[in-house]
Amino acid sequence: MNIQDIIANKRDGKKLNADEIKYFVEEYTKGNITDYQAAALIMAIYINGMDKDETTLLTLEMAKSGDILDLSTISDNVVDKHSTGGVGDKITIILMPIIASLGIPVAKMSGRGLGFTGGTIDKLESIPGYRTEIKVEDFIKEVKKIGISIIGQTANLAPADKKIYALRDTISCVGSMPLIASSIMSKKIAAGANKIVLDVTVGRGAFMKNKEDAIKLSNMMKSIGSLANRETVCVLTNMDEPVGYAIGNSLEIIEAIECLKGNIPEDIKEIITTIGSYIIKLAGKGDNLNDNKLKILENINNGKAFDKFLELVQNQGGNIEYVKNVEKFEKAKYILPVTSKEEGYVYKLNAEKVGKISVDLGAGRLRKEDSIDKAVGIVLNKKIADKINKGDILAFIYANNKQKGEKAVEELLNAYEIVKEPVKKEEIILGIV
Amino acid sequence: MNIQDIIANKRDGKKLNADEIKYFVEEYTKGNITDYQAAALIMAIYINGMDKDETTLLTLEMAKSGDILDLSTISDNVVDKHSTGGVGDKITIILMPIIASLGIPVAKMSGRGLGFTGGTIDKLESIPGYRTEIKVEDFIKEVKKIGISIIGQTANLAPADKKIYALRDTISCVGSMPLIASSIMSKKIAAGANKIVLDVTVGRGAFMKNKEDAIKLSNMMKSIGSLANRETVCVLTNMDEPVGYAIGNSLEIIEAIECLKGNIPEDIKEIITTIGSYIIKLAGKGDNLNDNKLKILENINNGKAFDKFLELVQNQGGNIEYVKNVEKFEKAKYILPVTSKEEGYVYKLNAEKVGKISVDLGAGRLRKEDSIDKAVGIVLNKKIADKINKGDILAFIYANNKQKGEKAVEELLNAYEIVKEPVKKEEIILGIV
Repeated sequence: MNIQDIIANKRDGKKLNADEIKYFVEEYTKGNITDYQAAALIMAIYINGMDKDETTLLTLEMAKSGDILDLSTISDNVVDKHSTGGVGDKITIILMPIIASLGIPVAKMSGRGLGFTGGTIDKLESIPGYRTEIKVEDFIKEVKKIGISIIGQTANLAPADKKIYALRDTISCVGSMPLIASSIMSKKIAAGANKIVLDVTVGRGAFMKNKEDAIKLSNMMKSIGSLANRETVCVLTNMDEPVGYAIGNSLEIIEAIECLKGNIPEDIKEIITTIGSYIIKLAGKGDNLNDNKLKILENINNGKAFDKFLELVQNQGGNIEYVKNVEKFEKAKYILPVTSKEEGYVYKLNAEKVGKISVDLGAGRLRKEDSIDKAVGIVLNKKIADKINKGDILAFIYANNKQKGEKAVEELLNAYEIVKEPVKKEEIILGIV
Repeated sequence: MNIQDIIANKRDGKKLNADEIKYFVEEYTKGNITDYQAAALIMAIYINGMDKDETTLLTLEMAKSGDILDLSTISDNVVDKHSTGGVGDKITIILMPIIASLGIPVAKMSGRGLGFTGGTIDKLESIPGYRTEIKVEDFIKEVKKIGISIIGQTANLAPADKKIYALRDTISCVGSMPLIASSIMSKKIAAGANKIVLDVTVGRGAFMKNKEDAIKLSNMMKSIGSLANRETVCVLTNMDEPVGYAIGNSLEIIEAIECLKGNIPEDIKEIITTIGSYIIKLAGKGDNLNDNKLKILENINNGKAFDKFLELVQNQGGNIEYVKNVEKFEKAKYILPVTSKEEGYVYKLNAEKVGKISVDLGAGRLRKEDSIDKAVGIVLNKKIADKINKGDILAFIYANNKQKGEKAVEELLNAYEIVKEPVKKEEIILGIV
């Protein structure tokens, strides 16, 4: 077998067989296949596609390329949650402590931000002292001790996916359905949970721009999950506009803390109760989804979820004084209002544009090696369907560089589309697959 | 402008514009675009294609990536000849001295073999002492002095094409029409001749497997030539079976010498008279193609062509004793007959298979850095349409390794397809574009 023949087969639209996929993943991980050969194959996959069999095989080979965690000592049913990426997406940070406070163990590995989407790990690191790099044994120990741990992915978790993902990013091959599905599922399978709830984002700020594609991707991931003995539920959520009001690392942590204290924007409330209700169900702790939603809201209201978050932060070395008093978070030097020049109703607020503006401010990275500025970002004041008067503040830009801040004000103003007629609020939960 | 956007455009089947193509060629040549990004773009081009405009722009940018030779001091009309590659293709070596003997200057840069096709430069280097690396100034001087020089391509001739070609070879992207057309024409434009005759090979041993594709490729190259002020004629020749009888470096040189002495197989005679007649016409030395053909045959018969070849070899440092007496060429250790087990007529003799067998014997290279064995190869005894009796020798394998030789005997036997009914000789010249 040689890589040229494999490339030629996919180039010609043929189906790759198990041996070919295994050979590619193994030899590329070992460094015996060059980056340019892998790039050619990935582009051929992007254009000519892969069917369910191929995607499943690729997923399993990538999962097997490194360690596969054994979480069975924690519980019979360990549930993982993952989002396909969004702007302002702090759902994991809010929802996981809630779940843990309900007695369901949470052993969660999260990623860093890349491109216009942020990452849970970067956000958590805004809390001074919070350690995200923890050995697997200690990770499992901590889950057993306090019922929750959220850390970064270990180096040897699906290393093939890491290599392939980094390459896809530089060759404009991120947005391919079989590649997205296999990347997500390989990491989830390697991460060891046997139940998986996926937040599949749909809209301008997501990879899946429409519901049909999101359903297709969801079905692909469910089918991979089922072949790998992982029960998988996909919740389709709207990502036309950002989730909640804050975009940026410490700004999102502050919003997450507020949510855990009970001050929850409607969209976040819908997402956490829906996803959470499936997590509870998959964990075997309640089949009635409505009851599960009530349990979630109850543990926010009675303070148990917030206490669990405090426990998590303390246990991972974070300074809980910041959690108790969010005023302690370092503020950006410039806080610039974005003021509306027109009146009417917000018709669109392009999440992708908002994400890119926050990256330009320094909140995200364009390359893996970029460092990020925790304090900068955006706090929205108006979202889709809100009524606007001339002179109303639409949002605040948090910047540490005045020029960048002023540019962001301009750009964010353009990300808002305001119309004369009233606008209906968009649906948040678009479906369950 | 950035390479990701260019890749994304071609990935989505869009037409690349002049700025994008210029950016890619310039920055890739400079090393500012990585091999894996180039590989992704090339695969996208392979699958989604390029139209005439894009192909022409790519050609001109690749030509401009290095020196463009000025041959105008040699003559107003300098004619170049190129073959799209074949097995046993020694046409240049035979035809160019004939052309020079007719008083038409020949300034020819040739390539080395790669894959299953051989290269003129490798073959000429079988003559001990023959220098193929000569400075451009000296090359032009020699053409002025004796009317002919055949050398290897200088390092700075279309360096972008060199990089792209080497990459295509490793990522299974050689056989793409716009990439083949732009690769050939960029080198031809940079090589300075203002008239170009192209031998477009068609069949099992060529990149173009059928006549329709060959016509399409020819039209593409003619149109590029015309936009670059290079009058171009394409002669479509049959490459289902090898050209002539010898395959291998010194074996082909010996056959070329025999041809120049007047012992010419029919297929070679047809090819050299047809291509030669167009070269003479384009050089402004005769509009009547039939008369031109006669001139070619005349200069073989009167020995002028052979004398010119001797002069060429001597002038480039080669030992002419080898040319005068081909017995001097080092012979392979093992000369193994391939004997027919059936009787009938040769129906097929797959040129690509024959080419690959000769590469396995050591006559060609799989990678650019491979060294080659000048003495090994194949001498055919029977070709398509020949009558075969049981026990007839179909060919001789020339090997320096007994095992490889025996394997080649087996494989060559399989490359022959023998049928009971008489077979019509295939046409050699398939068309003129």
